[in-house]
Amino acid sequence: MEWEKIAEELTQPTDSKIILLVMDGLGGLPVNGLTELETARRPNLNEAARRGICGVTDPVFMGITPGSGPAHLALFGYDPLKYQLGRGILEAMGTGVEVGRDDVVARGNFATLKDGLVVDRRAGRLATSENSQLCALINETIKEIRGVKVSVFPGKEHRFVFKLSGPGLSEAITDCDPQKEGQPPLKAVALEPEAELTASLVNEFITRLSDLLKDQPKANYALLRGFAKFPSHLPPMPSLYKVKPASIANYPMYRGLTRLLGMEVLEVGPDTAEIFDVLEKHYADYNFFYLHFKKTDSAGEDGRFEDKVKAIEEIDQFIPRLWTLKPDVLVITSDHSTPSTLKSHSWHPNPFVLISPRAEGDDVAEFSQKACTKGALGRFQSIYAMPLMLAYALKLKKFGA
Amino acid sequence: MEWEKIAEELTQPTDSKIILLVMDGLGGLPVNGLTELETARRPNLNEAARRGICGVTDPVFMGITPGSGPAHLALFGYDPLKYQLGRGILEAMGTGVEVGRDDVVARGNFATLKDGLVVDRRAGRLATSENSQLCALINETIKEIRGVKVSVFPGKEHRFVFKLSGPGLSEAITDCDPQKEGQPPLKAVALEPEAELTASLVNEFITRLSDLLKDQPKANYALLRGFAKFPSHLPPMPSLYKVKPASIANYPMYRGLTRLLGMEVLEVGPDTAEIFDVLEKHYADYNFFYLHFKKTDSAGEDGRFEDKVKAIEEIDQFIPRLWTLKPDVLVITSDHSTPSTLKSHSWHPNPFVLISPRAEGDDVAEFSQKACTKGALGRFQSIYAMPLMLAYALKLKKFGA
Repeated sequence: MEWEKIAEELTQPTDSKIILLVMDGLGGLPVNGLTELETARRPNLNEAARRGICGVTDPVFMGITPGSGPAHLALFGYDPLKYQLGRGILEAMGTGVEVGRDDVVARGNFATLKDGLVVDRRAGRLATSENSQLCALINETIKEIRGVKVSVFPGKEHRFVFKLSGPGLSEAITDCDPQKEGQPPLKAVALEPEAELTASLVNEFITRLSDLLKDQPKANYALLRGFAKFPSHLPPMPSLYKVKPASIANYPMYRGLTRLLGMEVLEVGPDTAEIFDVLEKHYADYNFFYLHFKKTDSAGEDGRFEDKVKAIEEIDQFIPRLWTLKPDVLVITSDHSTPSTLKSHSWHPNPFVLISPRAEGDDVAEFSQKACTKGALGRFQSIYAMPLMLAYALKLKKFGA
Repeated sequence: MEWEKIAEELTQPTDSKIILLVMDGLGGLPVNGLTELETARRPNLNEAARRGICGVTDPVFMGITPGSGPAHLALFGYDPLKYQLGRGILEAMGTGVEVGRDDVVARGNFATLKDGLVVDRRAGRLATSENSQLCALINETIKEIRGVKVSVFPGKEHRFVFKLSGPGLSEAITDCDPQKEGQPPLKAVALEPEAELTASLVNEFITRLSDLLKDQPKANYALLRGFAKFPSHLPPMPSLYKVKPASIANYPMYRGLTRLLGMEVLEVGPDTAEIFDVLEKHYADYNFFYLHFKKTDSAGEDGRFEDKVKAIEEIDQFIPRLWTLKPDVLVITSDHSTPSTLKSHSWHPNPFVLISPRAEGDDVAEFSQKACTKGALGRFQSIYAMPLMLAYALKLKKFGA
């Protein structure tokens, strides 16, 4: 029996409040014997460890380094091995493009075509500003095709996101990008009968676009690949867990993902204090709050050990504002590790603390990977974070009699 | 989504080196409060625990006592519940018989037939030397049947291994052994149309063998059972993990199994020092090394507590030669436990230590089941050993974006 089915059956609406604070890329590796987290002065995170029960999590399973998508899906109780997000979806979320459940999106490249062959798959990596102008021109000229809304969204350099919005669309079509230069571009081909419409819309879009851009010196064509819809079988959080969820995240990727999961995405600026301001302002309006803190990951990705330490020290000051709200469940954890020494996401486990009046307590008095390993929750897969939060919030009824 | 598919997609060839030392049957139970491992003077194994991150493993899942086959498959990342090795395969590997991917093998018993009935299923447990003579006679007389190579390999007493080598063979045929005395022997029957050839070859072999042995006083017949091929869907390690693996094992069973998994099987004698000599000699030629140490298991199986302690103390001296090589990943663990007090394999968890420049560290300062339980890796299933080794060797790319 699957978790989704268990959740649908066993969760119940309650007044209880859950706060999940994700410190992105928090887990790390030691430098001179101490990780970024161990190095940081963090009296309040340590106090959280004392107040709660601790553990460490593996986002997918031991050894697997996850992208942000799978790592977050797991924290929200969606098996990342089951719900895989297509290339187009990830590109759209990273670019801040809203994706509805009926939309098909794809990654686009401006390219150079000569005598029917792709001579530059990236149109000389054109300037981002030029990309924006071309996208504006395309959106003005090609608003819809046979009643289906078409739009493009500029990314960096040659990259853009292509979106079709309308009923009856399918992601089951082949890429238009031959992946090699010196080859002719490909036509989108339907992989199943239901995808014929989408394939013909895509091909007509490309024909019209290439006509529109034919006099451009470099960007006279576009290659689309990774056509994708949001996984339609992914049940939204409100029906799955009987919660009214709010997302407090500043970065497009996390806003896009949580919107698709059925969360209300609240406006929040880049300052750390705003995360807590927005939470307090809307605390009465929702009962599940996802708070996203990005600075730890950004510093880790860049290899800035000291800045990651500072980011932790910065957010530490705000932690008492979380327990002042007296939520039924407060979880502070990470989606994945981003050790500064590796300058990338990694497979190392994430510290995890859960504070609740119903928590049984343990001896952990410090918030770090090493200390949390010895906590009541031990080492577990992130997919169990959601059942745990719902349980400690008394939102999960008994299974069986 | 399955690990094999993830592995195929995410593993990448690298120069990094992995060493996996399996101390067979290492886990144990205490006598006077201490297990064999805790009793042994083991400064270098303890040093390994201090240098690395520790945990304990369950080969299949908690409570399951595995055979050597499933326990090793799990360590190499093959789910032992999915890849089950047939009786014939295990018998062949234990006898040191090479099994190719097209071969069918079976367990054979010399037996006594009288008036068309099996009167002794073991031919009076004939002498092993007599068994060898009979097998030689059979191999000389029945070299092939209709172009398919036939061979038998003597085991102990009445046991032998039967092998057919050729294209188009199938394991889907019934046993010839009625399992009871006083019954007539059975004909092999095909369980699917593709197995008709194999069944008829087996029946013809038995007819010719019984004619050849008809004047033998006891061993005038043979019963075959457990027809098996190597699981054809089992992907070889080199393609699955992008490694060039070498196996340093002296016992036939481990040599056979690792050969079937696509490892190069190096020659090594029975002395413990040779394991390390061979490793050093070939260290430049491969990037994944499986080292097998059998003495711990043999002593455990015989109930020789003191000898198991001595075996541990013996190998402990050689451990520094492993870190002198500076591998990217060094794992020292066991396939399963063999407590001397039980004189058999058991379900108790195995101590596990992983040493790597990318390991996050823990507080474990001693190599034992009890101490390792408190390590960074906690308690986990052996199937995760391989993803962990690949991750710490930087051989696994990111999953999703």
